[in-house]
Amino acid sequence: MKPITSTLAVSQGPLPASRKVYHSGEQYKDLRVPMREIALHPSSGEAPVVVYDTSGPYSDSEFVCNLESGLPRTRAAWIAERGDIESYEGRRVQPADNGFVNAESVIAEFPNKHQPLRAKGDKAVTQIAYARAGIITPEMEYIAVRENMGRSIPAEASTDGESFGATIPEFITPEFVRLEVAEGRAIIPCNINHPESEPMIIGRNFLVKINANIGNSAVTSSMADEVEKMVWSTRWGADTVMDLSTGRNIHNIREWILRNSAVPIGTVPIYQALEKVKGIAEDLTWEIFRDTLIEQAEQGVDYFTIHAGLRIAHVPLTVDRVTGIVSRGGSIMAKWCLHHHKESFLYEHFSEICDIARRYDVSLSLGDGLRPGSIADANDAAQFAELETLGELTKIAWEKDCQVMIEGPGHVPMHKIKENMEKQQDCCGDAPFYTLGPLTTDIAPGYDHITSGIGAAMIGWYGTAMLCYVTPKEHLGLPDRNDVKTGVITYKIAAHAADLAKGHPGAQLRDDALSRARFEFRWQDQFNLSLDPETAEKFHDQTLPKEAHKVAHFCSMCGPKFCSMRISQDIREEARSQGMQEMAMRYRTDEGDLYMPVVKR
Amino acid sequence: MKPITSTLAVSQGPLPASRKVYHSGEQYKDLRVPMREIALHPSSGEAPVVVYDTSGPYSDSEFVCNLESGLPRTRAAWIAERGDIESYEGRRVQPADNGFVNAESVIAEFPNKHQPLRAKGDKAVTQIAYARAGIITPEMEYIAVRENMGRSIPAEASTDGESFGATIPEFITPEFVRLEVAEGRAIIPCNINHPESEPMIIGRNFLVKINANIGNSAVTSSMADEVEKMVWSTRWGADTVMDLSTGRNIHNIREWILRNSAVPIGTVPIYQALEKVKGIAEDLTWEIFRDTLIEQAEQGVDYFTIHAGLRIAHVPLTVDRVTGIVSRGGSIMAKWCLHHHKESFLYEHFSEICDIARRYDVSLSLGDGLRPGSIADANDAAQFAELETLGELTKIAWEKDCQVMIEGPGHVPMHKIKENMEKQQDCCGDAPFYTLGPLTTDIAPGYDHITSGIGAAMIGWYGTAMLCYVTPKEHLGLPDRNDVKTGVITYKIAAHAADLAKGHPGAQLRDDALSRARFEFRWQDQFNLSLDPETAEKFHDQTLPKEAHKVAHFCSMCGPKFCSMRISQDIREEARSQGMQEMAMRYRTDEGDLYMPVVKR
Repeated sequence: MKPITSTLAVSQGPLPASRKVYHSGEQYKDLRVPMREIALHPSSGEAPVVVYDTSGPYSDSEFVCNLESGLPRTRAAWIAERGDIESYEGRRVQPADNGFVNAESVIAEFPNKHQPLRAKGDKAVTQIAYARAGIITPEMEYIAVRENMGRSIPAEASTDGESFGATIPEFITPEFVRLEVAEGRAIIPCNINHPESEPMIIGRNFLVKINANIGNSAVTSSMADEVEKMVWSTRWGADTVMDLSTGRNIHNIREWILRNSAVPIGTVPIYQALEKVKGIAEDLTWEIFRDTLIEQAEQGVDYFTIHAGLRIAHVPLTVDRVTGIVSRGGSIMAKWCLHHHKESFLYEHFSEICDIARRYDVSLSLGDGLRPGSIADANDAAQFAELETLGELTKIAWEKDCQVMIEGPGHVPMHKIKENMEKQQDCCGDAPFYTLGPLTTDIAPGYDHITSGIGAAMIGWYGTAMLCYVTPKEHLGLPDRNDVKTGVITYKIAAHAADLAKGHPGAQLRDDALSRARFEFRWQDQFNLSLDPETAEKFHDQTLPKEAHKVAHFCSMCGPKFCSMRISQDIREEARSQGMQEMAMRYRTDEGDLYMPVVKR
Repeated sequence: MKPITSTLAVSQGPLPASRKVYHSGEQYKDLRVPMREIALHPSSGEAPVVVYDTSGPYSDSEFVCNLESGLPRTRAAWIAERGDIESYEGRRVQPADNGFVNAESVIAEFPNKHQPLRAKGDKAVTQIAYARAGIITPEMEYIAVRENMGRSIPAEASTDGESFGATIPEFITPEFVRLEVAEGRAIIPCNINHPESEPMIIGRNFLVKINANIGNSAVTSSMADEVEKMVWSTRWGADTVMDLSTGRNIHNIREWILRNSAVPIGTVPIYQALEKVKGIAEDLTWEIFRDTLIEQAEQGVDYFTIHAGLRIAHVPLTVDRVTGIVSRGGSIMAKWCLHHHKESFLYEHFSEICDIARRYDVSLSLGDGLRPGSIADANDAAQFAELETLGELTKIAWEKDCQVMIEGPGHVPMHKIKENMEKQQDCCGDAPFYTLGPLTTDIAPGYDHITSGIGAAMIGWYGTAMLCYVTPKEHLGLPDRNDVKTGVITYKIAAHAADLAKGHPGAQLRDDALSRARFEFRWQDQFNLSLDPETAEKFHDQTLPKEAHKVAHFCSMCGPKFCSMRISQDIREEARSQGMQEMAMRYRTDEGDLYMPVVKR
């Protein structure tokens, strides 16, 4: 057995000029909703800028990290108080759960395991069930405070966006959160067995969220890597993390991740189920899959990707595709269906899947097993046939009081992106859309964070609620630490660009603060307000390393003589002393017309 | 004086699996239009993929490079044959031209200078003048062959794009090129004193082009760096290069660049003019500016950015902006106007500027001196007031038989991008639009190639003809070699995504070829077909370094068991042996309906 390193290191501490602040609720006074406050230089005369913070306790300078005890279980009391759950013995860990790993290679179990909880009887302990019953949960108020980013009054920033039918209020109330969840337009992924998580919401009337994928694979990676990847990706802004591990030790690694994760964790349970049948897709059974769902639900997985929309009748539609079936889950199920000449067991047992999900409040993420893997296959019959089935399944999930979102493509050229969003809304009511990219061209492996960041920004604008990141290594290899960061930052850009374009109240505050810092040559403020302060400062210092240049009223691009910002400031000064309004009037009068045709001269 | 290094090294040789091929014309049989042919693995059974090639002779394995003689002057004969030009003594280089550099720091003049050419009398030797006279020049046929990327028949690829009114024919004829140029919808930047350039076209009914900026500055850089940056950026796909040098030696450096550049070179002449008055904007005069235009036109600069649309009456409109005036040229002119309380001399003398441009066929790029420098300032009164003036100037340029394009922003959130394109078309007729990004958020310095790549792809789709790249160093420092490459590749992605979305015939051929290679595990083909083969291969090898893995039917993401592509291929095999069509029919019949509601089960 590999020893546990008790000094397992994860990335900790605040980002530059930042401190963690906590806001309380009104209905639930003891809520501690975390935000990041970025201090500005005193010369700015501006208040600190408050930004949404996904990084969990790790970025709180007060926090003492101990991976072996896990994060504080804040939600445990809220869950217990609802009085609708019971703790029980739970399923025993079996060799298959860790991919039949040898004794000498097994990674130690998390040392302080808790007994799992489940709903009493056939109660639904889901946020949608509470919402429909008119209950505002602490999770809902937490989210309302969080989405307002500390604002107690409606945002003053311009909100002239084009929202394509999204209706984002100027101020998010707990009641608004409840209503959105009740109507299925938003989900709060929060398994009752993951009380360490900080509640967050996925829905088009809220800030656009991003997901980062981590996961070891048959070829490489270890536990410590994966826990750190989770912490690392949330440090830079991942709102949820999917653990896509497929190798050995996956049960134990997942436990370590969950116990130390402040963000919801998603999985694709079919991956682990396939490990249990040693990779032979044909050997999968509903029973093995069902057992895997329970195993993961007891651990606290917050959402499951389920490829139940891929039906056997859809498979022939993929035969003439350029890239066939590119979803792993999709291809596994297609293979199973063809081999047995039977309908997908995920589709057939979808009701029972919902019965499990509602006992733990695992949200369902309906996987797009037939998403296009190339520009040529975008928006084809196979993709849209599956999407129609996902629409049916959405209704079933809602009938079962389950929270549900819909996964989307993939590879889609720009002119076909909007159709995806519209078709999803058409088929799946208002269930949140959760897309991978989409990649807007196939010709740039090595840069698919960018090919997909373009599509992600656009589809986020059109209404997608969460964007699954793509790293530079997509199609080529496993992302390392730098790739994860690059993917996360790229997707924060896409999500934020979408928020701006939708006219999300308050989204522009950070842009404006950074632009003012830029105009006033507050270099350090410009770095600190950026999504990646370290890189911004490093890039600046590569050409102008001296400390003096951080306060210089020019930069290396133009040098002092050519600096437009500096000249522009001079103009402003001059204008003020001359009385710019008067001057403007004079020019207008002198010339009769602001846009006097040049030919007159 | 610094010695000339006769072994000046620039990046040379073909990209992986590529060779340079040359196509001839029909009207002009001896045209040698360069293209890059990417060979595929024999197992593919596919013909080589031909792609547009901006890299010039440097990527031809036969080419012997000698920077001191410069590139072959292919166009010289075409120009001479038109019989409308004369060679003359030309302007003498003055100390001011090189920024009053000390004798010991001066960079040697290019050793094999040619006498400049100019139009005889008041003839217009511009492509638009020829086009209007019904003449198809060799440049025009060259471009037709080039834009078809070697196809001699219309493309077979799907062309179901949304072009927003662009009308791209299935096959580009020389006559189509002539018509587009005659009507001002496209320009061919090709100064008669830059006969080394390979003709290319900028217009919305052609492939979307990209520009890379290079240039030394007061703070750093040298001549060798700049020539190599030009070669380097065209190696990765820059269609034109702007030399934005502002320091000393700029006349001499520009000569080296021009003599060795196969792509059109653009400049912002006001930068050099300001050097001549030692950086004192108020000391600028029309005479100094005029002299600079002639100096640069004689050297062969292919297009000039002229900020003639910024009028004194516009300046007050910028006072309440968050970031004032961010264009260097714009701020220089604003300062001049305010100081002298006079209308801009660029605006007042615009007719004379056109008279110079038509003598050398310098295209005019009307600069947007009031482009927004932040999200807050996008699409404001200042920006659009200037754009209306640019519309007036466009008409004057056309009256003078000058080729003209219009520069655009800047920083613009996604929902305001389309308005920019529409307003430009409205104000400036069909003159090509040439935009910087736009950046879709201000909050990611260090990643502004991405914030702007999003906007560039979108505005390219809407109709922008050329996209000016932004590197990761934007706002922070001077781009180095890696930054230039990253910027160029990002913008190739944006331009190509735009071509796909517009439905450009043939654009999808490369995507399809790469996707087939991906599906068939032809790893090396996948690398070779990508925009950056070196990075793609390097990323792959980081996780699976062994040569054997280059032919492996899986990759490091999923490992062999989970590979969806492999499973998908198995399914296809199985389907073929079972008769997939029959199978599909059977499922459809069995179940009555492809989308039988799941509740029935």
